[in-house]
Amino acid sequence: MYLARIHVRFKPGVLDPQGAAILGALNHLGFEGVKSARTGKMIEITLEAEDRSAAGRTVREMCEKLLANPVIEDFTFEIAEENL
Amino acid sequence: MYLARIHVRFKPGVLDPQGAAILGALNHLGFEGVKSARTGKMIEITLEAEDRSAAGRTVREMCEKLLANPVIEDFTFEIAEENL
Repeated sequence: MYLARIHVRFKPGVLDPQGAAILGALNHLGFEGVKSARTGKMIEITLEAEDRSAAGRTVREMCEKLLANPVIEDFTFEIAEENL
Repeated sequence: MYLARIHVRFKPGVLDPQGAAILGALNHLGFEGVKSARTGKMIEITLEAEDRSAAGRTVREMCEKLLANPVIEDFTFEIAEENL
């Protein structure tokens, strides 16, 4: 069993209103050293696969087909083996 | 300058409808080895601080005050030094 942790972020240059709201709220709360805030999604998937490399191929395909919007988002992922 | 990467997840046992929708969609698309999908938020913040330990204290306070809902969410974060 493999655990894939996927991060989906907006591409550089794409507006991130949620990040802007967080930055504004942090400044408003008195956190003055904060320079930027960007948000993204994290998706953790457990899957069965023959080996780590097959798991990686599957997860890449999931990201391309469903989890990320390639027009505005980039994705990265890491895969760990899980003993259940 | 420090870069904090914060992960906010639902606590175990809290329903995650978005994760359930992703699991359903992946199965529907033919990804049959997928056993579970959980979603979370990722927030990346750049901040100025005296040292890494001060940055960590600040980020923990941000999470407790604004970024995570302690009733239903847990948070973790890691901090890296950035040369700008």
